[in-house]
This record gives sequence, structure tokens and C-alpha cells, in this order.
Amino acid sequence: MKTVFLGELLMRLDTRNNERFIQANEFGVRYTGAEANAAVSMVNYDQEAWVVTVVPDHEIGQACINYLRQYGVKTEYVKKKSGRLGIFFLETGASQRPSKVIYDRADSVMACAKPEDFNFEQIFSGKDWLHFSGTLPALSPDTAELTRLAVKTAHEKGLTVSCDLNYRKKLWSQSEARAAMIPLMEYVDVLIGNEEDAATALGMSPENVDITNTDYAIAPYRKLTEKLYERFHFKYVAMTFRKNISASVNKWSAGLYDGKEFNLSKEYTMQVIDRVGGGDSFSGGLIYALQDKMSSADAIEFAVCASCLKHSIPGDFNHVSRDEVLTLMNRDGSGRVQR
Amino acid sequence: MKTVFLGELLMRLDTRNNERFIQANEFGVRYTGAEANAAVSMVNYDQEAWVVTVVPDHEIGQACINYLRQYGVKTEYVKKKSGRLGIFFLETGASQRPSKVIYDRADSVMACAKPEDFNFEQIFSGKDWLHFSGTLPALSPDTAELTRLAVKTAHEKGLTVSCDLNYRKKLWSQSEARAAMIPLMEYVDVLIGNEEDAATALGMSPENVDITNTDYAIAPYRKLTEKLYERFHFKYVAMTFRKNISASVNKWSAGLYDGKEFNLSKEYTMQVIDRVGGGDSFSGGLIYALQDKMSSADAIEFAVCASCLKHSIPGDFNHVSRDEVLTLMNRDGSGRVQR
Amino acid sequence: MKTVFLGELLMRLDTRNNERFIQANEFGVRYTGAEANAAVSMVNYDQEAWVVTVVPDHEIGQACINYLRQYGVKTEYVKKKSGRLGIFFLETGASQRPSKVIYDRADSVMACAKPEDFNFEQIFSGKDWLHFSGTLPALSPDTAELTRLAVKTAHEKGLTVSCDLNYRKKLWSQSEARAAMIPLMEYVDVLIGNEEDAATALGMSPENVDITNTDYAIAPYRKLTEKLYERFHFKYVAMTFRKNISASVNKWSAGLYDGKEFNLSKEYTMQVIDRVGGGDSFSGGLIYALQDKMSSADAIEFAVCASCLKHSIPGDFNHVSRDEVLTLMNRDGSGRVQR
Amino acid sequence: MKTVFLGELLMRLDTRNNERFIQANEFGVRYTGAEANAAVSMVNYDQEAWVVTVVPDHEIGQACINYLRQYGVKTEYVKKKSGRLGIFFLETGASQRPSKVIYDRADSVMACAKPEDFNFEQIFSGKDWLHFSGTLPALSPDTAELTRLAVKTAHEKGLTVSCDLNYRKKLWSQSEARAAMIPLMEYVDVLIGNEEDAATALGMSPENVDITNTDYAIAPYRKLTEKLYERFHFKYVAMTFRKNISASVNKWSAGLYDGKEFNLSKEYTMQVIDRVGGGDSFSGGLIYALQDKMSSADAIEFAVCASCLKHSIPGDFNHVSRDEVLTLMNRDGSGRVQR
Amino acid sequence: MKTVFLGELLMRLDTRNNERFIQANEFGVRYTGAEANAAVSMVNYDQEAWVVTVVPDHEIGQACINYLRQYGVKTEYVKKKSGRLGIFFLETGASQRPSKVIYDRADSVMACAKPEDFNFEQIFSGKDWLHFSGTLPALSPDTAELTRLAVKTAHEKGLTVSCDLNYRKKLWSQSEARAAMIPLMEYVDVLIGNEEDAATALGMSPENVDITNTDYAIAPYRKLTEKLYERFHFKYVAMTFRKNISASVNKWSAGLYDGKEFNLSKEYTMQVIDRVGGGDSFSGGLIYALQDKMSSADAIEFAVCASCLKHSIPGDFNHVSRDEVLTLMNRDGSGRVQR
Amino acid sequence: MKTVFLGELLMRLDTRNNERFIQANEFGVRYTGAEANAAVSMVNYDQEAWVVTVVPDHEIGQACINYLRQYGVKTEYVKKKSGRLGIFFLETGASQRPSKVIYDRADSVMACAKPEDFNFEQIFSGKDWLHFSGTLPALSPDTAELTRLAVKTAHEKGLTVSCDLNYRKKLWSQSEARAAMIPLMEYVDVLIGNEEDAATALGMSPENVDITNTDYAIAPYRKLTEKLYERFHFKYVAMTFRKNISASVNKWSAGLYDGKEFNLSKEYTMQVIDRVGGGDSFSGGLIYALQDKMSSADAIEFAVCASCLKHSIPGDFNHVSRDEVLTLMNRDGSGRVQR
Repeated sequence: MKTVFLGELLMRLDTRNNERFIQANEFGVRYTGAEANAAVSMVNYDQEAWVVTVVPDHEIGQACINYLRQYGVKTEYVKKKSGRLGIFFLETGASQRPSKVIYDRADSVMACAKPEDFNFEQIFSGKDWLHFSGTLPALSPDTAELTRLAVKTAHEKGLTVSCDLNYRKKLWSQSEARAAMIPLMEYVDVLIGNEEDAATALGMSPENVDITNTDYAIAPYRKLTEKLYERFHFKYVAMTFRKNISASVNKWSAGLYDGKEFNLSKEYTMQVIDRVGGGDSFSGGLIYALQDKMSSADAIEFAVCASCLKHSIPGDFNHVSRDEVLTLMNRDGSGRVQR
Repeated sequence: MKTVFLGELLMRLDTRNNERFIQANEFGVRYTGAEANAAVSMVNYDQEAWVVTVVPDHEIGQACINYLRQYGVKTEYVKKKSGRLGIFFLETGASQRPSKVIYDRADSVMACAKPEDFNFEQIFSGKDWLHFSGTLPALSPDTAELTRLAVKTAHEKGLTVSCDLNYRKKLWSQSEARAAMIPLMEYVDVLIGNEEDAATALGMSPENVDITNTDYAIAPYRKLTEKLYERFHFKYVAMTFRKNISASVNKWSAGLYDGKEFNLSKEYTMQVIDRVGGGDSFSGGLIYALQDKMSSADAIEFAVCASCLKHSIPGDFNHVSRDEVLTLMNRDGSGRVQR
Repeated sequence: MKTVFLGELLMRLDTRNNERFIQANEFGVRYTGAEANAAVSMVNYDQEAWVVTVVPDHEIGQACINYLRQYGVKTEYVKKKSGRLGIFFLETGASQRPSKVIYDRADSVMACAKPEDFNFEQIFSGKDWLHFSGTLPALSPDTAELTRLAVKTAHEKGLTVSCDLNYRKKLWSQSEARAAMIPLMEYVDVLIGNEEDAATALGMSPENVDITNTDYAIAPYRKLTEKLYERFHFKYVAMTFRKNISASVNKWSAGLYDGKEFNLSKEYTMQVIDRVGGGDSFSGGLIYALQDKMSSADAIEFAVCASCLKHSIPGDFNHVSRDEVLTLMNRDGSGRVQR
Repeated sequence: MKTVFLGELLMRLDTRNNERFIQANEFGVRYTGAEANAAVSMVNYDQEAWVVTVVPDHEIGQACINYLRQYGVKTEYVKKKSGRLGIFFLETGASQRPSKVIYDRADSVMACAKPEDFNFEQIFSGKDWLHFSGTLPALSPDTAELTRLAVKTAHEKGLTVSCDLNYRKKLWSQSEARAAMIPLMEYVDVLIGNEEDAATALGMSPENVDITNTDYAIAPYRKLTEKLYERFHFKYVAMTFRKNISASVNKWSAGLYDGKEFNLSKEYTMQVIDRVGGGDSFSGGLIYALQDKMSSADAIEFAVCASCLKHSIPGDFNHVSRDEVLTLMNRDGSGRVQR
Repeated sequence: MKTVFLGELLMRLDTRNNERFIQANEFGVRYTGAEANAAVSMVNYDQEAWVVTVVPDHEIGQACINYLRQYGVKTEYVKKKSGRLGIFFLETGASQRPSKVIYDRADSVMACAKPEDFNFEQIFSGKDWLHFSGTLPALSPDTAELTRLAVKTAHEKGLTVSCDLNYRKKLWSQSEARAAMIPLMEYVDVLIGNEEDAATALGMSPENVDITNTDYAIAPYRKLTEKLYERFHFKYVAMTFRKNISASVNKWSAGLYDGKEFNLSKEYTMQVIDRVGGGDSFSGGLIYALQDKMSSADAIEFAVCASCLKHSIPGDFNHVSRDEVLTLMNRDGSGRVQR
Repeated sequence: MKTVFLGELLMRLDTRNNERFIQANEFGVRYTGAEANAAVSMVNYDQEAWVVTVVPDHEIGQACINYLRQYGVKTEYVKKKSGRLGIFFLETGASQRPSKVIYDRADSVMACAKPEDFNFEQIFSGKDWLHFSGTLPALSPDTAELTRLAVKTAHEKGLTVSCDLNYRKKLWSQSEARAAMIPLMEYVDVLIGNEEDAATALGMSPENVDITNTDYAIAPYRKLTEKLYERFHFKYVAMTFRKNISASVNKWSAGLYDGKEFNLSKEYTMQVIDRVGGGDSFSGGLIYALQDKMSSADAIEFAVCASCLKHSIPGDFNHVSRDEVLTLMNRDGSGRVQR
């Protein structure tokens, strides 16, 4: 299957060894983006994936492209323009201390992109699926418009469209988000959200859930997925559930409503190596599982297992194969050394 | 508020990645000291803090000063003399293997300091609080004498005096410690101790506690704080309780007796990144909370939360803000990523 | 006591910071081998230990020798020949993601060794004990033959012979292993196996155990040790039990059957820093304990505590002293900082 | 003497070990700025130095402040505002391959600063000297205006004003530079330029010099300094001469015209460790030497020796003491180990 | 233009910071190969390049592919088979101490490749140029045969064929080399050699040259190129000249004989950062220059400038653009910082 | 031949990447000593070498022993006592900036050693040669006395005694040095000095030499060696000549007077990677060459070539083989890559 991932690339600068920002005298350098992260997952499952974006026309922009094509992502629709690459600084937390992100992404070359920078007719030609996340329309009115155009075009050309709501409060307000996101839902087939942003961006909340409780109840979310399904006529509504025991230990599960049943995955208790990109690896896993025609129960389990493994890998990309995900699905993740 | 921290600075040379000493081919370099660690905490809570000490008159001594002033500690009372900087080597343990310290601090430039090296009258002028720990008088008869002089002068000039007992068996014997420490108590307003050293240095033990038990009882310590309070006429007696599940996981709480009530904090289970400096960050938190006129119950909670967060940060300094401590006090430390 | 360790040395190239192979741009370099690992343990308990092997006659071979003699292993029987050093690549897992080994050890200089490369008569002269593991005969028909020769010679010269079954499915098949290993048992006094390989290499299985269950039962193994003891007339049969909660957390215990009793150790829950070499450190601990004439109950406890500590140390070698092992035997491993 | 340095701070992200940008997976992190670099020099010569600037009101901004005060620079006039810190990426060249800078500094918090962000009357009160460089007015019309205001105020309050022309073609065009810089010259006492930018920013060129020639003639610059002196009524005109044998080896000298004589320093052949900040360390050295009332001949030699040593130190700051500069002035820089 | 590069990929494990092998506790990891190195150059000049090879069917093999495609090399003809990747260990010399290579490349998956592993008809279809080096036929009789087949097929399909003689004495003897190489010359259009191997592999020596002399004469090589040209009917014969002042400083030039003139490039004195891959970057530069229809004089200058820059870059790949090479051709490599 | 090296071991803590002390946040860790450095050289030439010293009885002391035996030095005469290991901090210079050493070696466990700590009769039994340097008697009156005792005993037992004057002004004054060293000369057969300390410690100066001149004359030293020879009745007097072009480039040669001729070696221009240990590697080379019965001309050339190569290797030890030294003696050090 051929999947297109439309979104922004960012430079991630991360502190090492659990250092705080003010202790750092070096940063690890990675290039990432919600959609690109999911694209890498797809390639790891032996599917074809294109990232569509704009990067700066200097060496840092080239490094973005190299970083993606290293892992097999197709980059022929990555455009180079004069401008800057968005940056985020990441401080990895531990125990009771949360990880922290500082954004320096305003006025990025992608935030300044215009609808006419992309020929969506051509890009989507011969493709099967389009994925985007809520961070893209959040960047600027222009990216909101180009997202709308892309989603509409994809829908009309018969691609399946998936959307990870991915609400970021530093990018836009709830009302801005809703104004942009709700109209897009018309073209979306597969909706993906987490326990925090699902409601925020679309204005539909579960009742009586306190996610700062480390063991909140799943039941209210079941209802929420059904309501979302009904209102927007999705084919699938997926929701991930993260229970933060601490920054070092998380519980992780997800549910998938397919119009008939709410399939709840097993819950995995994870020793967190790197939490960032966890949601994107879920999207990647789910898109693959649905393309692969797994049952709803298997699909949600595959997506959760895939993203569970992601949490054990440094960086935003999920470097695991289909076989490794299946092993976890089948054998409980005992972590026995393989030799 | 203006607080003076009197004590020794040391170079900390630590192995990386859980290596043992004999595996190390590089050491991390930090400059630290029980009192300096607490001083950094105070600056992070936006208070003024002075470290008073002696460092060598060469580049390593200058590096000490730089290290402190980087984090906003005032260093105008740091004196430079010919001599050496004390060193300690630190091997970070894991699981059942404890962290290990090798001291190389004999004959340090601070251990050789004389009372006349400091003009305490001038130093304490316009200041509100003096903090010291038991490692200072332990260094030499001269530092014992200058500690006495400092504490007495501070007391007479109306500063609040706090003391972290901080008993180190490699520095002096129990009887030496008691001979030096007990007379100092006359001038001390706030006493801070942990479950190990509280008794050792002052000769007053809780009954029937085995701290190698990973879940020892707190009750006997309640009584002990009351007895200490009565005997030495402190304003506050604080005691920290560390339960070592392993070198990687500790439980951490503390109690504060204010003459009326023994306020016991919540207990936090911590994944330990760096345990050294934990006690000092408690002192820093408590001094701040008392200066800030928090209630006893809030003060002990603030100090415990502050030091809980310290355990998640590499190095001896507690790089957390007042807001971050309050967040943990109010929200349970779920460690949710902040972006 | 003087112990000879016969086996292969390998270069271990490991990824850093939990990176996957495809993320690595540097490898840590160590030299290791099942028998050499046990030899280092013995030296740490102040015993004399010789490693007998063949290494390449270039700088990498010299590095092997240096690596061993650094830790006090005697290397006068290490021969240099033209050839290559076997390599294994190690990716350290975390949480649900297992550690992974890629072997590149075919045609190593040791796999190509001939019986006539070693003068076992001379090597064993004045020695007390020979230890080898199942990876040695697995390398090639020649090493199988030289193992047989060594074991027989050692036995005839009155050395105690210990064997760690150490089955590796990538080196040989079950039937090959059994064909080579079973005849060797005639000369073996102390048999060591783990829950996986004990049966594989000798064809005797416990009943109804699923080791992928994270909390499998020990009872069936008790019976197995007795059956092994009876069939092969060992003096001791030791078996380790690893329960993989995840790649980050393991439970670890062992049993020792001495013909009278099956002595089961305490079980330790370990935060795993480096799991590789865990079994070898058990062998080293057991050999030492038996040489030291500990009771069976103490011997198995010593061996388990020794190898428990190993899991907290990076690399294959167990850098712990006798005193450190005894501390864990006596005090529960609370991991209190030592200063 | 008390000197104020007005200018922007930037984050410098540099590749390691001569890697090119596209090879980098980590960046060294430093905080720097033309004026801050000179300020650090002054502190190293035991003078008081203030940096006046605006930084972001988050941890990265705090890191800027920490970085400066670590080295003793006074930071009480550093303002925090919401915004981003300018960044530059640095790739260190070698041999025939030049070092390369990518700017990502548009819309920085300092470029967005307004004249009213600074109370220059108060800042300059009790100070002796103001230093700024041409990069400050280049940032934006607002910074051009606030530079004008600062320079005028300083001049009126009797401070000596020094200016490093520091022309950067990526910040503004020649005509923009001239329009902003020439009017400022009225208030400048000490002009500093290098062989490239001296003319560019003020529109007065030496004749017939090709600086890509690795051994261009100095004579035409002598005349240029005289012409500049006459036209703008400076007290001193200093000019540095860099001859690039390669990125690894540079020749370095400078001249100072004081209205009477053109004092040309010795020329030093340098093995370049880090070339960035070289000019700033020259400014720092010259300002100090002139404040110290050295003769013109000594002053230019001091400034050149100081900046020569800078080229041997990683990072933009010149960590050398007055004594170290004097040693080079007096002993030829044989680089004999000091022990 | 579309160029195919046929050859082996190797893992390069290099020591850091000028350490010797026996000092190394970590290795840098890179994937390289004479032909792949040249392929990366071509991509940097915006040409299409395919590497044709076999890699192992495990993660290390995948890392090879990733490493190449990161830099834009096309990898669809890279085959995966069971086997090992060849390795070479590299110790970087300095001053009078030479760099040193230890090969561990026997029995690599590429050395075991069979002619039938490649469908050369298909691979060469639509391509313009084939490049290989003498290390390929040196690996095994099978690779010698598949090289012959490839070269013959390419020739017949009208591709231009270039060959870098690249003689390695540890791979084969002079007589073996000549037996295999001389027959291949029939199909070769562009011959590339260095001062050492040109003669060795083809049996035609310059007279009276001692290359250990740091300033040997070029003249005899002029004649040699003419003789080679005449004997084998090449279109171009290129030869590089390295004069080793030391491991840290080399002089570098080259000559190109086109049947009419021997064009000798300028000579560059290089501070060597990484010498390995220098010859391959020359091949890449020359192939590009000839494809680009530069004059012989320009082509040899382009190739020398390209490879001169390579020596300033760590690793085997030449990360420089066409523009950067042209800058050196036109401006003498003063190494002025670019900002 | 069997050689004993008597002297102190130190921990060397060095900054990385040319950083200054105040920039360092990590130190490289090495264990070194003038005599130990020479001992490692001897082992590299396949001779037996013992280091005789005292180290602390904790892990750091063990690390010293491991560090030496790693490279094959015999450590059975290394004694462990309670105390501290001397430390020196090393900042590696570059260009005009000299390397800098800060000593922290007072009261080291070796400085506190007593003559009775060593049984020299037994240690020297069956040995051929004793080497020591002037830093040993400089440590304390006790080490001066034990040096005297060792040298006298060795002389009486027929060992050849060599002494490297190795004057360190931070350890003792000229008059102290002369008072201790001159009486020792009675027992010394081979005297080694450099251009600086030769005279200082024995009170005999060359005339009119200014070693800060980068190209001082050798002639006066020729006379000095003759005078030393005559006065103290040595068998050989060797003197090294270092001309510091800069910290990065040194010229290096030496002369050997054997009572008949003053043999002056070739002079080598070295790009300095690590200059520390250079003199010790000269001693190691000379002792070997004399033991090997080389001619005086060859011996001095061997020693100079050996130490020339040392300057290209990080750390104090000279990791080069006899063959590598001979290669430089015979081929001029062109530094051609070896593969």
C-alpha cells in the first residue's frame, strides 16, 4: 500500500542522560515530525511511504531529507524553500519530574508554506492513503488551508484519510482548533486521538475523567468514541490511554471502535526510555494494521504493541519490524535476550 | 531573604553509565558541597544565597567559583588560598549494588582554614539566616572552632541558624562528632537530620529501628524528634526517611516537629537518577519553606517534594523551580510530558 | 586454588544508550567469553585463574590479552595465531523489547584451533580445577575434539571439572549438541545449566514449564536436577532460574542439588543494567564457593548473589569482590550509598 | 574600570570533530555574542563587565544568563521577554575547507527589542566605557534605533565608546549598513574593524588588496586607518589582519592608529582550534589595554596576543588571563608545557 | 547521467582521537566501500548513482543500505543474503605514525557472491557508466568472474567503464592481480591509479621513483600514463600523486592523459583529517567531470580539488557539493569562514 | 633483560578537545608515572619490567595496578597501603598556548612511603637494571632516603642503574635537588636529562643557551655531556633537545655521549598529539637500545624515534613496538597508511 504523510519536519534537540536544559552542554540532534514518525513505521512494515513537506534550502534542510530517506521514506515530494526549520528542545524527565518541551517553531518554512507549494492532484495520484495530524493546520492559516485542500483532494481521489488529532495548546487555542478541525472531519475515515486531545480539538468530552489520576477509568472513553463515530461518520475511531505512574513508568493501552464493537487492547506497563513519538507510532501501527485487513481486535492490539515497543527506543522513530510487533502480541514481552 | 551557607566545596568525580571505579576511563566533573547544594536550591526559589568557603588559588579553585555563580550563588565571600581542593570519587550503583564514595579530601584548603580567614561580623551583616552541616566541624579542629564562632556570631546577630547533622563516619568518630556538635546546638534554631545520622551525632537514638529493613517504621522517629526538641530547645526538628528498596528505587518522606505537631509528609517512591545531594535539597527546600512562612505541614511537604525531584536530576544540585515543586505538591508527580 | 578456563574470546560490540543496531554510529568495545567471564570472577575473589585460548596475532588479539590481564587473569597459555577474532554485536533491550545478539563468529581463530595447539598435560599441571562451557565444543569438530581431550586429561590428572551447558542454538542443533556434550559428562563433576539449556543439550526436560511465563514454577526443575545427578554421576548439579518480567526487570534465583538436598536460593528482583555475562558470573561464584568449602546452601546463595550483582554492572565481567557478595548475602541489597 | 557591552546573545550549535552539518548527530551548545565575548575577556583581565541584552523568559534564556555569570559577567541588565533566542549553526572547517555558519536568528527576542526596553541613563550611570558591534544595529530598525540611543547617551554621559564594525552580509546590505553605521560614528571614540568589513560598513576601501591572497599587503590599510581617523575624528582606529593559509592555519596581526603613528603588531602564525570569537577577543584585549593606559604599541600587541591565544581555545570566549597574554607578548609563544 | 558502482560494502570501525587499537574502548561505526564512496560523491554532484552489492540479511546489512540511501544513493540493486559483512578496523595515525588498517573481511557475503546473484543485463539497462575498483575481483574467484561478466556486459551495452586499480596487497598477490586485471582492461575506458598501485596491478612501472621520498618526481609517471594508454587503448588514464610529509600533512596532485596531453593539476598541501576514501573521492570527481564534459585540464583539477576537500572530512564519504569544489578550483582554498 | 622501575604512580586527569580547565565538565582518567611510562615501553619491546611503588588500598589503587598489568608490566612489588593517590590535572595546549599541569600530589601514599616498605634485596634479586627518575627523591625525605637505599643496593648487586633527572620545580628547589641528587650519581651508570633540567639538578650548565628560542644551538650541550661524564664517571650521558615551535609543533632530537663520541640523532619535526610522557618514552627506548647492545649511534636514534612516535599517541604511555620504531629509523616517517 502507498501512503502519503503530510506534515511538518522539526529539528529535535534533546539533552542527554536526564540532564535539565540548564545543565546541557550538548544536544542530540534528530529530525522528526508527527507524520514523518508514522511514515517511518510504515516503511518498517515494508510499505511505501511518502513524506510531503517543505524544508529549508540549506544543509540543515538536506539533513532532514537524509534523515528520512535513511529509513526508506520517499522524499521526492519534499520541497526546498528559503526559510528556517522549526526546532523543539526536549528535556527527558524521570520519576516524578516530567519531560519538558520548549518550542522554537514559529515562522518555520513549513508554517509559511502556501497551498500552491503542493500539487496534491499529482502527489495523491496512485496512492492509497493520506495521513495528517492536527499540528499541521495549527501552524498557520495557510497550512490550515492547505490541509483542507489536501484532505478534500485525497478524499475525492478515493484515498482513505486518517487524522491524529494531536492537539498542542502552545500552537493554538481550543476554539481555533475546533474551528479548523471540525470541518476537516467530513473527509476523515479514521480518527485517532489520545485521552487528552480527543475532546479538546473536537469539543466532545468524556465525563468525569481525571487523567492526572494514574489509574483513570476507560469506560467513559468508550462512550466518547461511539459519539464521535456517530457525529462524524468515521469508519474507525481509535483512542490511546496513557496512565502516567511517573515519567519513568507508564501504562499504555488503546481502544478501537469500528461501529460495532469497542475493542480494548491489553494494557502494557512500560519502563519509558523515550516517550516522544509514542502516539505517532500508534498511528503508524494502526494504519498498517487496517491496510493489512486485520480484525479490529487485532488491529488495535498491533497498534498498541507497536507503540509500546517505541517507548523502549531513543528518538521519535519506531524502529521495529512487523515480526517484532507480532512477537509482543503473541508472547507477552518477557524481553528474553535473543541470540 | 538573605541566607549564608558556610561549608566546604569539593570536586566530585563520577563514573558514567553505572560503571564501577575500575572500569572508568573518564570522570564527570562537578563542584559540590552540602551547604553549596542547599544554596543553589535557594537561588532556584529566587532567594539570595551566599556560599562562604575557601578554594585553591588556581584554575580548579576558579572553576568552583564559576560553577556556583553560574547558578546565581553569590561568591564574594569565597576566599582563595594556596592549597588543594578536596575530592570525592563517586560510583553510581544500581539495583542491589550500592553507590560508593571514595574520599580524597584530607588536608583540603578548607580543612586548613583558620577562624581568622573569615570576618563573620561583616559576612552576617544584613543577612537573615545561616546554614551549615556537620561535615564542616568534622574537617579539622580549626573548622570546628570556626564553625562554633560562626554559629555563635550569627545567633548573636539575630540570624536564624539551621544545621543539617550530616554525619560522615569517615570524617570523624561518634564521640568526636558529639563532642563538637552538641555544644553547637545551643545556637541552632532548625535541626535537620536523617534516619541514620540524627542519633549518631547527638547521641539520641530511636528505639528498635533497623534501617536496612526496606520498610522500617516511622513512629520511633516521631518520639525522637520530640526528645531532641525538648533537650535542645530548637524551633523545628526535621527528619528525613529514606527506605532503600534498592539503589535504583527509594521511598522518601520526612517529618517536621514544631513543638506542637509532628507533621509527616507523603511518601514518594522514586526511580533514582542521582541520589547524592538528596538531603541537601531537602535542607534547601525546608529553609525556603520556613522563610516563606508556610505552615509546618506545607513546609515539610515542600521540602520532601523538592528533594524528591532532586533524585531525578544528575549531579548534586537541585535544578527545580518553586513552581515545579508546587506542581508535585499539588498533582502527584504523574510525570506527564509538558509541551 | 588454581583454576583453568578453556574457551573462546570474542569481541563484543555494543550499542549505547539503548539504541537499536540501525541507530548506532558508535560501538562500545569489550573482549569477553563465557569462560573468561567466569575467570575474572575468580580473580575478584582472590583466586588464581588462567584463560586458555587462541587469539589473532595482531593488535586486536593483543587487546584481548590486555583486557584479561588488566583484571588479573593469567594469560601465559593464550596462544597467538593468524586468523580472526569472533565478534558479536549486542543491542541492549529495555522494557518489552529484548536485547538482541548478532553473531559474526564463524571461522574464528579459536574455532579453527586444533587439539595440538594446546599442551594440556603441561597446562593442567599443578592446577585444581577446569571449567568450560558448551559454546566451546559447539564451535567446530576440532574444538569439540580438543574439549574432549582437555576434559579427559583434566579428569585423569585429578582436577575437578565444571561445565556450564550454555546452549546456543545459532552455534549448533540440539542433536549435534547432545552428540558432543553427553559423552563429555563422564568427566564432569559440577554441572551448571539454566532453565532453557539444561534440557536442550542433554535431552532431559522438566515437565510442563513455560519459561515465557514470567513466573514459572521451580518445582519441575528440582526433579530434573535429581535425574541429571543420577544419570551422569555428578557431584553437584546447579540450575539458574531467570524470570523475565521485562528486559529491564528480571527475577533471579538458582538451585543446587548435591545428592542429598536441593538447595533453593532466595529470589532477587533485579533492575537490569547489563544482562549478558549473568550466567558466567554465576559459574564463577559457584566454583569459588565450592572451592571455598561453603555448605551447599551457602554456595548457591553466594553464586546467586554474585550474579545478581553482575546484572547491575555494564559489560560481561563481574567486577565485585567477595565482601560485596557477602554483604548482599547478609543484608538484603538495600543499595544504601557507601561513604 | 566598568564597561558595558550592548548586544545580542545567540545559541551556538557546533558540530564535533570536524564533521559537516549533514554528518552531525549531536551539537555542542554554547551561548555567545560579539559583545558578550568581549565582556568575558574583560572579566578575565579582572575588570567589571556588564552585558545588556534581552533573552527569552524560559530555561534557554536562563541558560544564557548562567553561561555569562559563570565567567563573572554581570547580568543584572539582562532582560527576559517572551520570544526566541537567535541560533547559529557552526561547522568547523579544516585545511582547504572553510568553516561554515548557518544563521537562524531572524525574529529573535533581541531583534524584537524596543528602545524602551532599556533605561540607558541608569545602565550607564557610574560606568566608564560602552562597547557594541555592527551586528546590533543590523538586527532590525528597532535595534538600530536603540543602538543610536545608547551610543548617544553614553557619549553624553562621558563614557568612552568603542565599536567593532563586524559587518555580516547575511544581516544587511552594504547600503543599509552604511546608512545606519555612519551616523553612529559621531559618538565613537575607538573604531575596530577587520580587513574585510572595515570598508564595507563605512564605504572607505583600501586600494588594491585581495584578501583571498594568503599574504596580502598591509600597507594600504595603514592609509585607510588614517583616512578613517581623519574623517570621523576617532581617538583610535584599530584594524586586524587575518591571512588564511587554510582553515587550519592563519596568520594574525593588527595595527593601531592613534593620530600620530600606525603601530603594527608582530604577526603570529596560528594552528587554529576555533576561529570564531577571534575578533571579539581582539576587541576585549584592546579595550583593556587602552583602559590600562598601555602605549599604542603595547596596546595593539596585547590585543593581538590575546586574540592569538583565543584561536587555541574551543568556543567563542577567550579564557586567558592578563598574565598569559603578557607571557606571549614577552616570550614568543613557544608553548612549553607549564608544570 | 546514471552511473552504476559495483563493489563490496564494509563496516569501518575506527578508533577515536588518534588512539591506537589497544587503547580503544569504543569504535566509530561507518559503512563504506571504494565504489560506494565514489557513488556518494556523484550524488553530491546531483547525479544518479546506484550501488550494486550484497549485504547480510540482518540489521547490520540493513544499516549498510540505510547508510547509503541516507546520502541519496540508490539501493534497489543491493541484494540481501545470509552471511557476514566484511569489517576493517582503522587506527588514525598522526605525525610520523602511520594510519593502520586491520582487515577482517574474509568470507564476507560479497566475497561469496556468485555471478548469478546479479542480473547485469537488467541493472545496466538505461545506465550510462559503470565504475568498479580492483578490490572487487580481488575478493574471490567468484567476484573476479562476476566482475569480468559485469564489465563485459556494460561494455557491450555501451556504458562507459571506469576502473580504479586500487591494489591491496593483503587481498591478493601481484601475479594474481595481474592475471585478473589485465584481461579486464579490454573493456575499460577510463583507468585510474595511484602512484603505488598503478604499476603493481598491471605490471608496468615508472622508472626510478621512490615514493617514500616525500617529494618524489612526477615526470616518470607521465611516461607511464602514456604507455598504459597505448597498450590498453583507454580513453583516459588518470594518476594521483600523494606525497606523505607525515600522517598529518600530505601533498596531493594528479595527472590525466587523454591521448594528447598529460594534464597535471596544481598540488595541494593538506592538513589531513581523514585520509581514507581520498582516492575514491578522486574517482567520483573525475567521473563527474568527464560526464560533465569538462576539458581534460579542468577535469583533473576538479577531481583533485574534490579529493583534496575529502581529506578534511571525517569518514570515507566526500560530503562536498559541486559548488564547493569549484570554489576551491577558483579561489585557492584559503578556508575563510563562510557566514 | 629484567628491569625494575622504582617511582610514584599518579592519576592523570586531562581535559578533552583542547579545553581549558575552567571549561571542563569531564576528565579523561589515566594512571601514569615517569618510571611506569618507561616500563610500558620496555614491555612493548618484549622485555620484562617491574614497577615498584605504593598505591592506596582501595579501588583507585587497584585501578593503578590494573592499568599497568593491562600492558604487561609486572606488579607483584606494588604495595597497597592506606593513603591517597597523587593526582595531576592536565590541560592540553595548542598553538601559542602551552599545556598546563596542576599538581595535587602532596602527601600521596608513595610520598609517605618508608624505606622499610620495600625489600630491595629481594626485589633486585635476579634483575639486570634499575631505573628511577628525579621525581622520586623529590617527594619527601623518606623517598629520598629510600631512593638512595635502592640505588645503592642495586649497584652493589650488580644491576645497571639509569637515572632520568626529571627536575620539577614545583616539587623541590634547585638546592634541595642538588643536595639529594648529586650523592646518588655515584651509583648511576646511565644519566638522562633534557635541555632544561640537566643542569638544574646537578648544578652544571651549558653556556649561553636560551631554550625559549625555538631553534637554540646544540653545541653547548655537547660539552656539558662531556663534563658530566667526567665528573660523575657515568657510562653514558644522554640528553634530549626539544625545540618548541609552538605547543602544536615541536622539533625533537637527542645526543648520547659514551666517553668517546657525542652521537647526535636526526631531528624530527612533530605534530604534537600528546607531549606528556615524551621524555619517559625516550628513557624506555634508550634503556632498551643499550640492553640490546646497539651502537651508541643506533641507540640514540632508536630512543629518539621511539619518543618521537610517543608524541603522536594520547596518554603518557608509548604504545609502539620495536618494529615500529625501527621503521621510523629506516624510512623517515612518511606516515603512509598501512593496509
